[in-house]
Amino acid sequence: MTEHISKQFDAELEAIRSQVLGMAGLVEQQVRQAMEALASADTAIINHVIEQEELVNAMHTKLDDMCVHMIARRQPAASDLRLVMAVIKSVEDLERIGDKAASICKRAKTLFEGGKMQVPRLNDIKHIANQALDMLAQSLDAFARMDAVTASEVKRMDSQLDTEYRALQRQLITFMMEDPRTITMMLDILWVAKAIERIGDYAVSISEQVIYMVKGQDVRHKSQDEVDAVAKAERP
Amino acid sequence: MTEHISKQFDAELEAIRSQVLGMAGLVEQQVRQAMEALASADTAIINHVIEQEELVNAMHTKLDDMCVHMIARRQPAASDLRLVMAVIKSVEDLERIGDKAASICKRAKTLFEGGKMQVPRLNDIKHIANQALDMLAQSLDAFARMDAVTASEVKRMDSQLDTEYRALQRQLITFMMEDPRTITMMLDILWVAKAIERIGDYAVSISEQVIYMVKGQDVRHKSQDEVDAVAKAERP
Repeated sequence: MTEHISKQFDAELEAIRSQVLGMAGLVEQQVRQAMEALASADTAIINHVIEQEELVNAMHTKLDDMCVHMIARRQPAASDLRLVMAVIKSVEDLERIGDKAASICKRAKTLFEGGKMQVPRLNDIKHIANQALDMLAQSLDAFARMDAVTASEVKRMDSQLDTEYRALQRQLITFMMEDPRTITMMLDILWVAKAIERIGDYAVSISEQVIYMVKGQDVRHKSQDEVDAVAKAERP
Repeated sequence: MTEHISKQFDAELEAIRSQVLGMAGLVEQQVRQAMEALASADTAIINHVIEQEELVNAMHTKLDDMCVHMIARRQPAASDLRLVMAVIKSVEDLERIGDKAASICKRAKTLFEGGKMQVPRLNDIKHIANQALDMLAQSLDAFARMDAVTASEVKRMDSQLDTEYRALQRQLITFMMEDPRTITMMLDILWVAKAIERIGDYAVSISEQVIYMVKGQDVRHKSQDEVDAVAKAERP
């Protein structure tokens, strides 16, 4: 490659990376605002998050398109190709996280329209949402710094989130049994909790892409020990 | 490209296509067996579906790897590149469908271990499962025949599935309210129904990849009318 083309190439890769981080920032904010909406019953925030879904979708389509064009025109190899492939998968995960933020807001709408002014178990919901947000922040940080070890921690954090999600689920079911009048409302909360648990899964998926990008190994169906070993190994 | 290389290239593309269809056949069978397991309470089938998840995961990893190598070594362009990109996304959807079949079996296990010998609302579950299986079969048929119009029908079928899923969800909630002792069991059925509804979503996703492959347009966040228009348009 001539120096000129190589510089253009690097600039394009850098543009893709920075747009991924831009999209990630927006999606992170959507999740935060969805939590804010649940706490405050603020219809303006609820509608704002739902409306932003389109913007996230547009970013997804655009980044995907940039990546395919990059492959077609520049024919990246080795770690550059891995970066592009990892971006294609990560933006899909980001788009799904945006979807989940919007569904949380749609549930919030149902709850508040039902006359409910306060969401039950809000602190528990906030607690697992903060865990999911931490996981997302850490996977994005790992992406930005190309840090496989940081990425490998995200899977571990997910085991913790899953445990707490299951405990919350059991509590919600107990409440339903004790007072069947709360069933519909508790199911709404259960869907919100489930959406948060899924956000954690998507953060894991992004972190797996970071490991693939940096280490060149697909760790998607591997155990935590295997993931740790790959993340800590010297570069091939 | 020399004729020799071009022939090798076609053979590789064909190998990828046929392995995708092989993986799809396995995943379809998993969903059918999951339904059979729900109907028969047969522990052997339940365990078989759960165990096959690993095989599906292995196929996913392998196909993904084949695609990335194909891009790196052969530098496919235009419709060949679109085929490879569509495969990368479709095998992810197939893997998720396999996951859902396995989760249905895990729920079935819980139900039958709880002493239940017959699943309530089994006919409704079977009905939506058949819809999801039809969607999957149609999206795979569209993939095999590179048929964008057939693919565009899958999205329409999904609206029907969603409507029926929501009706079933309402019924299950009504049962819970009428007899709170059934809550845990009805929730298990609700998760099964939700898993089936998601299988429909993944079938839509595969059909969107077929349209992208054939027509070169990303229709993922488009309305049914827009999808129809793209599918019916003359090739660009």
